[in-house]
Parts: sequence; C-alpha cells; structure tokens
Amino acid sequence: MSVTASSYSITMRLHTAPDHGIVGAVATAISHAGGIVTAIDVTESRHDRLVLDVTCSASDSEHSEKLVAAVDVVPSVEVYKVSDRTFLLHIGGKIEVNSKVPLKNRDDLSMAYTPGVGRVSMALYNNPADVSRLTVKGNSVAVVTDGSAVLGLGNIGPGAALPVMEGKAALFKRFANIDAWPICLASQDTDEIVKAVEMIAPGFGGINLEDIAAPRCFEIEARLRKSLDIPVFHDDQHGTAIVVLAALTNALRCVKKELKDARVVVSGGGAAGSAIVSLLMAGGATDVVVSDIEGLLCVDDESLAPAKADLARRTNPRKVRGTLRDGLQGADVFIGVSAPKILEPEWIKEMAPQSVVFALANPDPEVDPSEAEKYAAVVASGRSDYPNQINNVLAFPGVFRGLLDARASEITTDMLLRAAYAIAHVVGDDELNPNFIIPSVFHPDVPKRVAAAISGKSAD
Amino acid sequence: MSVTASSYSITMRLHTAPDHGIVGAVATAISHAGGIVTAIDVTESRHDRLVLDVTCSASDSEHSEKLVAAVDVVPSVEVYKVSDRTFLLHIGGKIEVNSKVPLKNRDDLSMAYTPGVGRVSMALYNNPADVSRLTVKGNSVAVVTDGSAVLGLGNIGPGAALPVMEGKAALFKRFANIDAWPICLASQDTDEIVKAVEMIAPGFGGINLEDIAAPRCFEIEARLRKSLDIPVFHDDQHGTAIVVLAALTNALRCVKKELKDARVVVSGGGAAGSAIVSLLMAGGATDVVVSDIEGLLCVDDESLAPAKADLARRTNPRKVRGTLRDGLQGADVFIGVSAPKILEPEWIKEMAPQSVVFALANPDPEVDPSEAEKYAAVVASGRSDYPNQINNVLAFPGVFRGLLDARASEITTDMLLRAAYAIAHVVGDDELNPNFIIPSVFHPDVPKRVAAAISGKSAD
Repeated sequence: MSVTASSYSITMRLHTAPDHGIVGAVATAISHAGGIVTAIDVTESRHDRLVLDVTCSASDSEHSEKLVAAVDVVPSVEVYKVSDRTFLLHIGGKIEVNSKVPLKNRDDLSMAYTPGVGRVSMALYNNPADVSRLTVKGNSVAVVTDGSAVLGLGNIGPGAALPVMEGKAALFKRFANIDAWPICLASQDTDEIVKAVEMIAPGFGGINLEDIAAPRCFEIEARLRKSLDIPVFHDDQHGTAIVVLAALTNALRCVKKELKDARVVVSGGGAAGSAIVSLLMAGGATDVVVSDIEGLLCVDDESLAPAKADLARRTNPRKVRGTLRDGLQGADVFIGVSAPKILEPEWIKEMAPQSVVFALANPDPEVDPSEAEKYAAVVASGRSDYPNQINNVLAFPGVFRGLLDARASEITTDMLLRAAYAIAHVVGDDELNPNFIIPSVFHPDVPKRVAAAISGKSAD
Repeated sequence: MSVTASSYSITMRLHTAPDHGIVGAVATAISHAGGIVTAIDVTESRHDRLVLDVTCSASDSEHSEKLVAAVDVVPSVEVYKVSDRTFLLHIGGKIEVNSKVPLKNRDDLSMAYTPGVGRVSMALYNNPADVSRLTVKGNSVAVVTDGSAVLGLGNIGPGAALPVMEGKAALFKRFANIDAWPICLASQDTDEIVKAVEMIAPGFGGINLEDIAAPRCFEIEARLRKSLDIPVFHDDQHGTAIVVLAALTNALRCVKKELKDARVVVSGGGAAGSAIVSLLMAGGATDVVVSDIEGLLCVDDESLAPAKADLARRTNPRKVRGTLRDGLQGADVFIGVSAPKILEPEWIKEMAPQSVVFALANPDPEVDPSEAEKYAAVVASGRSDYPNQINNVLAFPGVFRGLLDARASEITTDMLLRAAYAIAHVVGDDELNPNFIIPSVFHPDVPKRVAAAISGKSAD
C-alpha cells in the first residue's frame, strides 16, 4: 500500500446523526480505505445533529477522493465540505514583506523615509560599495524562473510556478535568514531572460535561477555569471550536484571505495546530470558515463546535440556504447536524475559488489528504493519516506548565506566542492551507516557549516 | 534659527572626567549651539572617568558637526565616537521577507514546498485566475525605479535609490498591509525599462513607478498601462496629484471658492506638474496656467518641446504669456512643484483676495511658508514642520490597497478623483480651518477610505 502524506491531507466537515458512536464508524471507514486520521474535532453538538471536522492523510489526490467516498457511505453521515490543507495553507501566499524599522510617528518616518533617507542615498551615490551594508541588497536573493521546468511538472509558466518560488523564498528565510523574493518572468527566450535579470540585479545580492529548462539554463547562467557582479547559482544544477557529491562521499565511506577509482553511471544529461558530472569530476572522479535518451553518451557519436556532445567529450573515457544496462556492467555507482522506473532492480546485480544507487527522479524514482536495497549496499532517493533523502534544502540556504556573508561576486567550483564536503562531514564517523549518509535538512549545523565552507569564515 | 529634526539626530559617545556636573555642561553646550538634547545615558561610571551617550537633534549635517565641535571644547570632555541615528537605522536594510507558514518539520515542508506545492501549481496552471488568490501576487506591488530622479537628489542611479524604494516598501506595509518589493533597474533607457517591467509583472499584483525622470516617465507609464493586465501607477505623478486635489478641495472649502471658477497657476511642468494639471481639470478646473523654465506655457509658443507643448495645448485658455509673476496676477491658487525660492512673498499680494499657496518643492519650498502666510489665506508645503503637509503617504498605500482588493487590472482617472475626495473628506466640517486642510498621515481612516474609494467596496 502507498504511504500517506501530509501534503495530501484533507479536512472533511461532516454533518451526522447525533450519535457519538458515529465518530468511531467514520474513523474505521477512513482506516479501511487506507487513510490515516490525524484529528477529529466535534465542532457542534445539537440534539438533532453533530458537526465533525475530520482531518486525514491520503497517499495522493485520487486516494483522498476515495476517503471522502468511503466516509460518505457511512450511514447517517453527510460530507458537507472538503478542505485541502495544502491549498488552505497557500491562500494569500506564503511570504510577506515586513519593515524592520519602527514607523510609529513622524520622527520615525523622517529617518526611514524622507528627508533622512536622502542623506543615506547621497552617501551611497558617493560610495557605491556601501550599498550592500546600508540596504537589503546585502541580504537579498532573487529567485528567478521562467516557469519552463517546474519540479517534475514541466512547462507550466511563470504564474503557476509562483507557489514553488515563494516556497523557496520561505525556505531561504527559515534555514539561512535570507530575504529572497520570487521573480517570475514573462518570457522563455534566453536573451530576454538574461536581459531581465541584468536589469533587476542592482537590488539583489545574489541570483538563484530555478526551474529553467535545459539546455537554455546553461547559456543563461554562463552569460549572467559573466555580466553580473553578484553570484549566480542555478539550484537545479549546482544545488543538486552539491548534495549528490555530499551523499556520494559518505556512501563511498560506507563501502570503503574511493571516488577516483569508482565507475559512475549518471542517468540523465539535463541540467542536474551535467552539473553532477562536472562536480564529481572536479572532486576527483575519473570514470563517469552518462546515459540519456540517445543511449550512453560517447564522443564517437556524431549525432549528438551540442550540450550532449559537450558532456560526451568530457566523460566516458572507456568509450562504452549501448544502453543504460550496458553502462551498468561492473559500475560502482548509479546516479539517476532522469525518469521513473527506468532501472530494473535485477540490473543492479550486474554492477560491481557493494554498489551505490541514487534514484533521484521526482516524485517517482528510477527504481523503487525498497527493491534497490535488495541488491545495492547503499540506496538514496529524493523521497522523504525512505532513508537517505537527497534534498537541495541541504545546500542552497547555506550556499547563499556564505556568498552574502563574504560579499562574494561569484561562485567557484571550489566553493561547491567545499560545500559538499561540509554537508558530508556533518555526519560523524560514529553515525555513518548505509541508512544514514546524509544529515536531516533540520540539522541546525548544516546551513552554518555550508556557509562557512563557502565564505571561508568559521561557523560561529 | 533653523528647526532641528530627528533625521539629523546624532549620538555622541563621550569620555569625561568623573564629575557628574559635566552632564549639565555638555547639555548647555549643545543647547547654546542650537541643538536639542533628546537623551543622555551614563553608560559607565568609574572612579577615573564617565562614559556618556548623548543623543541630540540638529537642523542639518553642518549643524550636527557644529554640535560635536561645541561639545568637544567642554573642559575634560573627549568625543570618543559620533553615530548618526539615521545611518544606524539603515544598516542591513529596512525590510525583510518572512514566511507566513510554519516550516518546523517535514510535514510543514511537504505542504509549503515539494511535493504538496506541486498540486497548487498544477491547479494554477489549469486555472490561472487563481494565481492572485493562492500566491503573494494578490497582495504584492513592485516599487520600480531607474534611479534617475530620486527625491530632490537627481540622477543618483539604482543602487543609491534603493534606500528610498525600501522605505516606500516599508510604508506600503505599515499603512496598507501590502507586500511591496523594490526593483532597482540597471538602465535608464525607456525601451529597456518597459521591457524589464513587462518581464517581472507575472509575480506582482501592481506596479508602482517611482522617481523616474520626465518626460521618459510618461511614455513608460503609458506603454505599461497598455501592455500589462495589472495596474500601473507613477506615484510622483498621480500620488502627488491626488493629495494636491484633496488639499485644494479643502482649501477652497475654507475660502468658499469653487474649483471650476478658480484661476490656478501651476509652477513646474514635469511629472508632478503635468499630473496635477490633468487631475485638477478632470476635477472641474477650467483656468489652469503652467509656468516653467520657458515662462508661462502657451499654445502659441511653437518653440516648446513635445511634452510641454502638449501641456500648453490643454491649458491656458486666456493665452497669458510672460513670467510666473505675470501669471499670478489675479490668480486664486498657486501650486509649486518646481524649485526653491522662485516665488517672492510680495507677489502673493498681486493674486486674488483669499489666495491659496501650495509650495511643494522639497526640501526647500518655492516660498517660505511663514512668509507666504502673511499674504495668502491658506498655505501648504511638503514640510513636516509647518501646518498642511502635502505628503504622498496619504495616497499610495490606500490606492494600491483598493486596487488589490478589487483585483483591478487598471487605474482610471475616476478612481484618482474618488481617492482625492476621500482624503479631503476625512477632515470634517468642524475640523476644517486654514491650518488643517489635510489629515495626518497617521490618521487611521485615510488608507481605509482611499481603498474603499478605489475599490468601490465599503471601508470596513
């Protein structure tokens, strides 16, 4: 049976007969239908009826409809209204802008706004280096998307992407006290996106590119890194790469292998896959093979599109050709950032002993983690309902905290490597085991250590 | 003597001899130099010395330096450090982004971010009209500038403009609970500005253009109003016009004249002047003459640049030519949005009886209000140290509150008129007098009534 999740949690308002035994009947009906009751409140008790609010978790939208149907057929129960807790949470948006200064009286206004603010502006005009110190620029990040590759949902556009960008902004605050604002762009044209980000850059201390489709994202990032004097970070690429390298570092510690000797197969040559390849190789990997829709990418294949051809040039030193399964023969590591269920569990048997499998496609991984566990020594996924969740939240808050603390103008590969090792080493030798290769996103040391690794300043 | 102001408030840390009589000597020295002591704290008292923090208001930067010098010569006092309270207030910026939803545990994350947020995004993809309801777009405003005409400081650029835009964002929150974010643009090219605002528009519910120089601002606003489906409001134009019409409505109530019969002279044909002219005429004014650097604007003058020629075509029905003083002969109303000290107080005698003078140039008005009072029946200025302060804070928060509440796609002249009358009528007949024609910015009814006037919904 599927796992239930809070993100599919619903609250049903029920009108029932005035019989308190009915509460048990409702709970039983939900339970039989595979749901989990997390709260029952009697909100009204009259001689002729009860009003009950029943909150329960389902495994997906379809399942939540089944739970409603199951309750609706309980005798003398009427489902009056169904609220989806996730939607309720989103009403009015998830972030807000607050003033950090008092604005109670005329004196306050005269310092925060005119005329006092004029002196601050003139000081910045005369000394532009102080802008970061005397404005929010020193602590702010633009979370920029064109809505072209949002989560696993595809090209849903900038408006529909906004809840995700707001969520990201909320996480920036929660984990690194950064003031991030979502910027959802009205165009998916590379030149227009680059120009728009250049135009808004003066007010921000960093740019977090988010959910922009490959290969467009590569050019956008490269051009912005060149033209801007603030750091530009495409989280889908480098955030993922940092967390993957962190997890792989610890996975290899578990199985006592070295990255430089490991054969690594990466499934998916898109934004995440390319960045993972680059960072693993910067971290010492020498034998990386990329598998994509064209098969194993190889420099000898002249039919490849430019971005894929570039990946092929940099990888596959043994010039292996063929399918994903061919690539996996004798491999030590599988890293999937591609599509659901493309890895048959049995193929893992054909990998080297003590193999490592990261199945990161979201929400449905390349292989069911519980199946993969039968053959691999270490398994990780993007899912929160299995051990070893690879989650970008481990990286991006600390990365930008460090960049802003250091007033960095760019982000280097060396910083990415240090961030990865910092995350890996939050897990102590005594804690490390195949089911615990990566710390929880709520581990308070993670953002601090990542920030320190990035900025070169010590973690308090 | 000049008036002291909190915006020029400084705190001096003094090391002095261990003699408590010294506190009196310091206070006297400041007072003799024209400063006002607002706080004295003894922060350390040892047998060999005292440490005092003395906070005092000065009238300007030069004056604050004089106060420091005056204290420094008090025997056995050393000025150890001087802090400027306005600069201290600005360190780290004045606004922040907060999460409105809990992010304490994995369940919270799964609803605010992945995977739960994916369902919200898909719902918005299927029904884009819900974006305003389920995201911050429904309550957010971009405060957009190119830094070309910041306060009275001129073209100081986008970085130096940021403290002003942040202050504006803070005021949006304080007075109308709106989530505003500053967008400081890296270019002053009309096409580039229009394009940049179009690009970022999907994430905002409204655009507040700010401190963009004329005549560029006219074209930018007109083009954005055409291309965007959210309201676009240039505060320097329409915010000012609303508050001027509100104040003038009440000034004319005081002197028992009608706007339609009044001769009005507007000094300054820039952004604010043009908008004031348009709104006064929409409100019924029939005899408006604009005075600018070219003299009185008149349709017969073929040497005028396009924006001025357009103003001339719409005004000056009597085709008066000459200087500002010529225009003022027999006029009922002077409205200055131009430059310091261009109006000689004696010229007011040549206006009609019971004349109204609004001298709004900032920080130094067209005529000293205390001089103008000798000849005019009603005087207003932009200054907080005289009665009748014309302050845009009276308008823009309520205007955008109303626009957002109504999910308005545009702002009409009719809305601007209603907003002006709403502000005017906060001042009751029993309160109205020549020294009280406009409510305080802290009057709690102002934003509510303006919002209701804009949205057509009732004020709470």
